Amino acid sequence: GQAVTSASALTVPQAARLAIRNKRHTGTTRGLAMGFVQCNLVIVPRTLAYDLLLYCQRNQKACPVLEVTDPGDPEPKQLAPGADLRTDLPRYAVYCDGARQPDVTDLDGLWRDDFVAFLIGSGITFDAALERAGVPTDRHRWVVRSRLPTVPAGRLRGDMVATMRWLTPQQAVIATQVSARFPFNHGAPIHIGDPAA
Amino acid sequence: GQAVTSASALTVPQAARLAIRNKRHTGTTRGLAMGFVQCNLVIVPRTLAYDLLLYCQRNQKACPVLEVTDPGDPEPKQLAPGADLRTDLPRYAVYCDGARQPDVTDLDGLWRDDFVAFLIGSGITFDAALERAGVPTDRHRWVVRSRLPTVPAGRLRGDMVATMRWLTPQQAVIATQVSARFPFNHGAPIHIGDPAA
Repeated sequence: GQAVTSASALTVPQAARLAIRNKRHTGTTRGLAMGFVQCNLVIVPRTLAYDLLLYCQRNQKACPVLEVTDPGDPEPKQLAPGADLRTDLPRYAVYCDGARQPDVTDLDGLWRDDFVAFLIGSGITFDAALERAGVPTDRHRWVVRSRLPTVPAGRLRGDMVATMRWLTPQQAVIATQVSARFPFNHGAPIHIGDPAA
Repeated sequence: GQAVTSASALTVPQAARLAIRNKRHTGTTRGLAMGFVQCNLVIVPRTLAYDLLLYCQRNQKACPVLEVTDPGDPEPKQLAPGADLRTDLPRYAVYCDGARQPDVTDLDGLWRDDFVAFLIGSGITFDAALERAGVPTDRHRWVVRSRLPTVPAGRLRGDMVATMRWLTPQQAVIATQVSARFPFNHGAPIHIGDPAA
């Protein structure tokens, strides 16, 4: 059902999503559309959606919500009209009753009419701005599980997960100023210096 | 159940809430606690809470959510620990099935275990900052119902309601810069100039 006839008529993110949908791109999406907003995706049944939305409201720095779809609708109409959240990501982690299942490359067999999709801002969004400001983003970077508790909401609770970047003090100052301009993509760092401090 | 023995030990907002709770203050709360965040209050049954929270997420400029209480809990634990939302406002508008009922001065007879309270930022919050910047806030000010539609969510939809302030062009520039620093209290104006334009 694509109305588009030429790849050159697509924006960079549209071309990336199409390549993923057609299984031509299968790896990470990091760097595929520099300068555009990048999201994390969380899909839950409608029965969990209020708890998740409230959890995000109470923990906006960890979970800045950019869009929530209506139940059963796989199209993020505000952020990416025409996109299909069931097919336009290279890989999906699946949990059933809290237990991780094998990853899948699309949701064709799993999508339900009561699924609600949360698009949550990602720090990858400001990588392009960091690079332009002289802060490297492609090395010395880890995802770490902190012991900083988030504010619970209903059935949801947990400690904050953060990206750690190994920078010089001068780079850390620049990175703080740049990232602070992206409050809906986590914004400024939660910590600078020794992680154990 | 007040543990406080002296009014002088209270912050300005705490003293204002206590005066309201004891029916010593009955008028508007505007100007009672300049420099502190002022909120609008919306209380709905839990069955409507997801629609309302999603409506607020989709219309953050109109409805910036500062806190959502747990069902049945009248205390806004994050913003104002110790406050009681059933008694600490001078007057409450009551709606039943969409029909306005007589106002009440407390919720003692109306509160329910399934009630969820939304604290939503108010433009009154930046009045003190506007005054300090030389922008008058006490005159030439109206609440207007616009024809700008908001983004619907579930059962909720409607046009945006705005505060119109009659300012000089120079004041409008200052007011825009000042209010823009308060994104969780509506932020910058939605319009400057002829309202019909």
